[in-house]
Amino acid sequence: MQCTFKIGRETKSLCQKKIISLLSPVKEKSISFCAKHLAFRCLEKKLDNFKHSGGLMKTHHCSAGFQSKFTVLPGEVDRYQGIWVDLTKIGEQLISKNTFPSTLEASLKLWQIQGITSAWLKVSIFQSALIADAAEHGFTFHHAEGSIATLSLWMDKSKKTKIPRFATHQMGVSGMVINNDTHEILVVKDKNRPYQLWKFPGGLSDLGEDIATTAEREVFEETGVKTEFQSVLAFRQQHNSPGAFGRSDLYVICRLKPLTFDLHPCDEEIAACRWMPVDQLKTEVQATSLTHTMAELAIQGLEHGFSQVDIISYQMASIYKGMKFHIFLRACK
Amino acid sequence: MQCTFKIGRETKSLCQKKIISLLSPVKEKSISFCAKHLAFRCLEKKLDNFKHSGGLMKTHHCSAGFQSKFTVLPGEVDRYQGIWVDLTKIGEQLISKNTFPSTLEASLKLWQIQGITSAWLKVSIFQSALIADAAEHGFTFHHAEGSIATLSLWMDKSKKTKIPRFATHQMGVSGMVINNDTHEILVVKDKNRPYQLWKFPGGLSDLGEDIATTAEREVFEETGVKTEFQSVLAFRQQHNSPGAFGRSDLYVICRLKPLTFDLHPCDEEIAACRWMPVDQLKTEVQATSLTHTMAELAIQGLEHGFSQVDIISYQMASIYKGMKFHIFLRACK
Repeated sequence: MQCTFKIGRETKSLCQKKIISLLSPVKEKSISFCAKHLAFRCLEKKLDNFKHSGGLMKTHHCSAGFQSKFTVLPGEVDRYQGIWVDLTKIGEQLISKNTFPSTLEASLKLWQIQGITSAWLKVSIFQSALIADAAEHGFTFHHAEGSIATLSLWMDKSKKTKIPRFATHQMGVSGMVINNDTHEILVVKDKNRPYQLWKFPGGLSDLGEDIATTAEREVFEETGVKTEFQSVLAFRQQHNSPGAFGRSDLYVICRLKPLTFDLHPCDEEIAACRWMPVDQLKTEVQATSLTHTMAELAIQGLEHGFSQVDIISYQMASIYKGMKFHIFLRACK
Repeated sequence: MQCTFKIGRETKSLCQKKIISLLSPVKEKSISFCAKHLAFRCLEKKLDNFKHSGGLMKTHHCSAGFQSKFTVLPGEVDRYQGIWVDLTKIGEQLISKNTFPSTLEASLKLWQIQGITSAWLKVSIFQSALIADAAEHGFTFHHAEGSIATLSLWMDKSKKTKIPRFATHQMGVSGMVINNDTHEILVVKDKNRPYQLWKFPGGLSDLGEDIATTAEREVFEETGVKTEFQSVLAFRQQHNSPGAFGRSDLYVICRLKPLTFDLHPCDEEIAACRWMPVDQLKTEVQATSLTHTMAELAIQGLEHGFSQVDIISYQMASIYKGMKFHIFLRACK
């Protein structure tokens, strides 16, 4: 069957060759036809108008009177020319086990012509059967959590992938609660650790939680002591940390001021809990060298003022509207 | 059909009631029978011997002469009583679309009796059809990357989940490269940013990469300037950062010493690149207030010595054999 398209002569001569080379591997005839048709229209419109128009079941009438249907996945294009498709919001019709492979194939052909650099699929855990179909086209897991997986595919084969990796660090925070009057520091022994050592109470940050908040929360949960954040004293980066699922660990030690002093340790987590003189902690056998270092820092602070050891923090406004962040640094004199 | 088991009287009286209540919801008769059988054996052996024996197609001969087969997923138990099952290493027989749902159901019943607190499934992207089956039993995505998804299920319903969340932070690092002789600082304008501002060259850490290495690498990639890490000057925690996939951003600004001075900016990423006098940067209109603050810190350092502003780092040995980490803090006097 012959079919002609109304397109500008210039566009045609520039793009016909590229389109044919791109589309020739498409197996199913009708898809190939439709994708070609769409591709011509897309290029004719100089790509721009088409970015947000990938849509459901469009019907096109060609000048030869031939009518066809094709399906492409609807998506939103980000500022890096990546297209985001949320399969959790698409009707069953487009993503049934029968239709999804051909729909995805046609979509990928179209996106390639449109100059899309990366394709992203958001999939519900109950739609997981579709993931293997996407994997056949080179999609891999970018990240997943709870009931949603996000797949990605770098499409611009002329360049190295620019898809950023998902979060690489967990954030652990502990609190060095210092009683400035007695020169004692709050220490605990964890119940569930292989090593029974005296350490500062602490734990992992919740998603979106400030360092200072984690410190105060964890100290209270583990020991029952209420505190107030003062400063950061130190932080540590550690790779391949056990229990971090192959990610790295950022561990921040905060200086906290105690507001209460009675101990109510958490039965489930804490084997022992006490106020220990800082001089004892400095050489305590059942403690790590990192803890010894921190005790020395506390002694410096108690003797010469904590302005000598603090990494202070203050809040600043982000360039992103309405957002703020904390900056941590040494105070300018 | 009647069937008796050779078990200790004490075990039987203690556990029978619990087993029956646990297993009664199992639908398929043969599985129910097998799981019961296995459960009795498991309890009889006081759970311990059974931890690592969840295995393939075990055949049991009961005293009544009844022979049955049952399948449970093989797994490894961690020190938190979590069981890890690697489906990528299990033969097709156990995890076919037909057998997997009943195998998983029987396994979960067994694990519950064994006191397993959490169950973990490692699934290849090409086995994704199994994920929806696991989701029917309450499994959710814990994390996923590349060709592997890891699902988790908290099984100890008497307690709140203790499954830690996957990594919550990405790590961005930039380098403040200071020419101590000319009092100039290396700044760039990114090509792909919505705001065209002067900033310090930098980017995201690769997985497992040290902060200092990221700083030196990114500065070289973006500007062609070779540098040597000196210290951390500041770090910032920001939640809901655009482009961080819902994770938080930890951004560390390092002080770097230039080893070369010629500029060879990266065409793809950098729109402009120059050495800017620190006094100009302090009030530069096309820069953020964070950049202004950092310029002030540099002036402090140039005038009074960088020991006044540095957050120094040194390497320490981890309690985990053969591992080391970097600690960042203010130098003790």
